[in-house]
Amino acid sequence: MKKTIIVFSGDLDKVMASFIIANGAAAMGDEVTMFFTFWGLNALRKPERIPTKKSFMEKMFGWMMPKGVNKLGISKMNFGGLGAVMMKKIMQQKQVESLQSLMETARMLGVKFIACTMSMDVMGFKPEELIDGLEFAGVASYLGEADQANVNLFI
Amino acid sequence: MKKTIIVFSGDLDKVMASFIIANGAAAMGDEVTMFFTFWGLNALRKPERIPTKKSFMEKMFGWMMPKGVNKLGISKMNFGGLGAVMMKKIMQQKQVESLQSLMETARMLGVKFIACTMSMDVMGFKPEELIDGLEFAGVASYLGEADQANVNLFI
Amino acid sequence: MKKTIIVFSGDLDKVMASFIIANGAAAMGDEVTMFFTFWGLNALRKPERIPTKKSFMEKMFGWMMPKGVNKLGISKMNFGGLGAVMMKKIMQQKQVESLQSLMETARMLGVKFIACTMSMDVMGFKPEELIDGLEFAGVASYLGEADQANVNLFI
Repeated sequence: MKKTIIVFSGDLDKVMASFIIANGAAAMGDEVTMFFTFWGLNALRKPERIPTKKSFMEKMFGWMMPKGVNKLGISKMNFGGLGAVMMKKIMQQKQVESLQSLMETARMLGVKFIACTMSMDVMGFKPEELIDGLEFAGVASYLGEADQANVNLFI
Repeated sequence: MKKTIIVFSGDLDKVMASFIIANGAAAMGDEVTMFFTFWGLNALRKPERIPTKKSFMEKMFGWMMPKGVNKLGISKMNFGGLGAVMMKKIMQQKQVESLQSLMETARMLGVKFIACTMSMDVMGFKPEELIDGLEFAGVASYLGEADQANVNLFI
Repeated sequence: MKKTIIVFSGDLDKVMASFIIANGAAAMGDEVTMFFTFWGLNALRKPERIPTKKSFMEKMFGWMMPKGVNKLGISKMNFGGLGAVMMKKIMQQKQVESLQSLMETARMLGVKFIACTMSMDVMGFKPEELIDGLEFAGVASYLGEADQANVNLFI
């Protein structure tokens, strides 16, 4: 049965949880759709600077927010990024898949990534600033997927 | 099919996400129930001071927490309210519906608003301090609605 | 019908909400599975120090994070624990069940507690440091339960 996950959070720990669930379901043969919105879009940003036309506010937003999976902080005890570094180090020691790798696995398993167009507009993110292979859609599209799914999470 | 959303968070961004999903579903013909609990109740407070009998603790709680949708902060980068102001400004520029307007639309579309009575008791919120047109109920009522729904989110 | 709740958060208010929903459903005759992961594992820690073999990082993690339900902070306005104390005091005055008591009730009602083994590994928590009566499992087990449930929440 299909599963959907709204990835609203841009915290490393929550985005990781999203992918662990998504990949687990996909590995068991489920169709999975991840709908990235608000802070969750940060996980989809390309790390490099892409030249785009932006308003002052959009530039500020883009500059203040983490650029891609490797820059996300954790939701508790982040201590200006130290917590995230520590968690990544521990995960490496324990041979837990990194978020980068979880995302690649999700792709291989056919998990569908949707970027929320309304949030992109508010945040000022252009499609070319986000990683490749995304679908772009809004809430109606999410609801259409959720109606066909038996597990729908908001993370 | 029915949808339910537990609005636990009182953050502007998360309450907005709740209404965008609720209104999207209602516009597509779904019955939608929003169950406001804990911090989420702040979104239902009337902005004006309503004279009520309260204990010292209840007064402090009431005084420390945001009074209604226009006072909510955002969950990240709020910077003492600056983040919320910035986000509202951007949304206005982009002609995204404000939270106030999203709430009115939800009403027009027949979305059911339930205020959690147990949380109201803990927070010391009296019914007359909350906006009109609410139902008052507890967890059993939520579960009854969720059992009839095919999408149940906790935000 | 079965319900599942992923308890990802370790915040007092969110863990309480999880148990209020779980106990409500169990009291109405539903099977309920709570899957504790990441910060949520803190709610399952025994308060006393249990001697275990740990790496330096694991010791630091164990030392920095709250030991059991009575040490959890609230997600907003915690003010270094003051918020949590205040909330507990108010709950006592209002005769709302404490988290400790909610957990005991959940047990009596037959709610199933699963501790996420992958998170335990990352956090460095050993089974003997967690309360008794838990099952230990991973995401596949969660997904198996969720597939049989009609309400699945991520908190």
